[in-house]
Amino acid sequence: MTTKYNNVYIEDTYTVCGNYESDGPLAKYFDKKHEKDLYFGEKTFEKAEVKLLKEAVEGILNKTNIKEEDIDLLISGDLQNQIAASDYMARDYNIPFLGIFEACATSGEGLLIGSTFIESKKSKRVLVTTSSHNMVSEKQFRNPTEYGAPKHKTATFTTTGSVAVLLTNQKSKIKIESSTIGKVMDLGIADPNHMGAVMAPAAGEVIAKHLKDTKRKASYYDLILTGDLGIYGKNILKEYLMTNYNIDISDNYNDCGTMIFDLDHQPVLAGGSGPVCSGLVIFGYIYKEMLKRKYKKILIVPTGAIFSPTFTFQKETIPSIANAISLEVEI
Amino acid sequence: MTTKYNNVYIEDTYTVCGNYESDGPLAKYFDKKHEKDLYFGEKTFEKAEVKLLKEAVEGILNKTNIKEEDIDLLISGDLQNQIAASDYMARDYNIPFLGIFEACATSGEGLLIGSTFIESKKSKRVLVTTSSHNMVSEKQFRNPTEYGAPKHKTATFTTTGSVAVLLTNQKSKIKIESSTIGKVMDLGIADPNHMGAVMAPAAGEVIAKHLKDTKRKASYYDLILTGDLGIYGKNILKEYLMTNYNIDISDNYNDCGTMIFDLDHQPVLAGGSGPVCSGLVIFGYIYKEMLKRKYKKILIVPTGAIFSPTFTFQKETIPSIANAISLEVEI
Repeated sequence: MTTKYNNVYIEDTYTVCGNYESDGPLAKYFDKKHEKDLYFGEKTFEKAEVKLLKEAVEGILNKTNIKEEDIDLLISGDLQNQIAASDYMARDYNIPFLGIFEACATSGEGLLIGSTFIESKKSKRVLVTTSSHNMVSEKQFRNPTEYGAPKHKTATFTTTGSVAVLLTNQKSKIKIESSTIGKVMDLGIADPNHMGAVMAPAAGEVIAKHLKDTKRKASYYDLILTGDLGIYGKNILKEYLMTNYNIDISDNYNDCGTMIFDLDHQPVLAGGSGPVCSGLVIFGYIYKEMLKRKYKKILIVPTGAIFSPTFTFQKETIPSIANAISLEVEI
Repeated sequence: MTTKYNNVYIEDTYTVCGNYESDGPLAKYFDKKHEKDLYFGEKTFEKAEVKLLKEAVEGILNKTNIKEEDIDLLISGDLQNQIAASDYMARDYNIPFLGIFEACATSGEGLLIGSTFIESKKSKRVLVTTSSHNMVSEKQFRNPTEYGAPKHKTATFTTTGSVAVLLTNQKSKIKIESSTIGKVMDLGIADPNHMGAVMAPAAGEVIAKHLKDTKRKASYYDLILTGDLGIYGKNILKEYLMTNYNIDISDNYNDCGTMIFDLDHQPVLAGGSGPVCSGLVIFGYIYKEMLKRKYKKILIVPTGAIFSPTFTFQKETIPSIANAISLEVEI
């Protein structure tokens, strides 16, 4: 489903990152950096992730000088079971709340739901947040790190951080121009250590659909940016689009998972992942480059492998989803 | 956030229930009933829940003679970690998908997001689904039944079933008239065996806000119907509204959790719960009574305790949420 928006803008963004991201090449673009450990003064990793989300909300409220009561709606999701980081963050704010979940594609889902609320003229300001925490994901989805289980080179490294994006109906420098909502795909891959391969077809399908519905060529965009396919998934996507749709994205395509870390020198295997991976790269780095007019038209495609350990134990393959959202420099 | 809709209608609904609900007082109102066991021919309870959701989608497509491609958007959520029942259902349909999570308040969240997509004129038809499965919840949130752990009388019994609600921009007999989105509340209760007490304040706040914003009295509605507070939570809500807002709902209020089972003769303790509890009662029973004009104006308030076992183990209290949606007989 492709939708063109007439009246949805980004008022501002706020990004918070953990220590691995602080050591990465994009660190200078993030508003707040943690550098010591992954607890951030909390007793558990789960509560540390709640703290990250609260820092993003506090950060954007302070940066924009806007009060809670001026925000009509808070939309948030994360990787914790029951999206607990978002829920426990939201209980501290007096803002109507919608909880969402599309794994690492959650930030894009929040943006397009928020954009629809503004476009329907029912909301004036919507705050969209997401987060992820490396150790929470290791505990919940993989093996406790104490086990020292070796990892395959195609595995990704969950990014730690949080991001807040404030959407508004008031004209600003960057417009949410259109979006295409993706479908759940499953091409039969069951390997949770190769999420790039799981997600690439979902990204390919939604990019092809977006370009078809908007009658645009890939070259319309200064940059097409997927969420967290990593180095292997990135190549699979390029091949998928060329083989199935004859779409060549080799000149204007990148993947946030390959950008947030220094893949040659940091222990991140195929690259970064987690909902905040695309969040940090897009709303930390790219957003600021758009404000400088380095990029004027970009298509962001947050990608999610909807990995359920329970279904994987039951020998099921892994479904995936991706949404495409077009951002344009307005002024 | 209270919103009035001009153009959102229910085209039809389809409900599927499990064996405990088949033995309950509302069984005759459900479109499909399972009566044998809780596996429904699948090898695991989790896959059995996926089957329930697919039956709801197939059921509404067959009942309305509408094809997948005529539906712009599928919105779904459930209690499984990673909302896996919804994800694994959605991969079998070629419909753009949004995954949501507000625990047992999920059905209401789906309705109001779907209504906004229709109201914004970006979608013509939106399918909203939800499900729950008693044994999946027992495994994931409580104790494996083999342990035979005794339960407190204030505990509720997760309802098994699925529901599909087809929203449309074309006039029908029943209109989604308005909605109020709730905030995450936490009054400090940490007992997962007393969810009625956890959720009652969230229901009370959203009902009070809805009546204030719409300038209506409680008596405007033929019926106010909360999701799954159960017999104890129901009394707490009545007292909460009277004490805090001087709102008397004693004449036109009921709770789906106390209606779906025969509380005197079925082993369900304080009543039914789970996202499909309110779904079955509202879109099985009440919807059909509205078509017969027994009720003309109702306010539904699906309630959710956003219970995370991880945070409860970490000594945290349990947040909750509720949304209020007004349904009116149109013709």
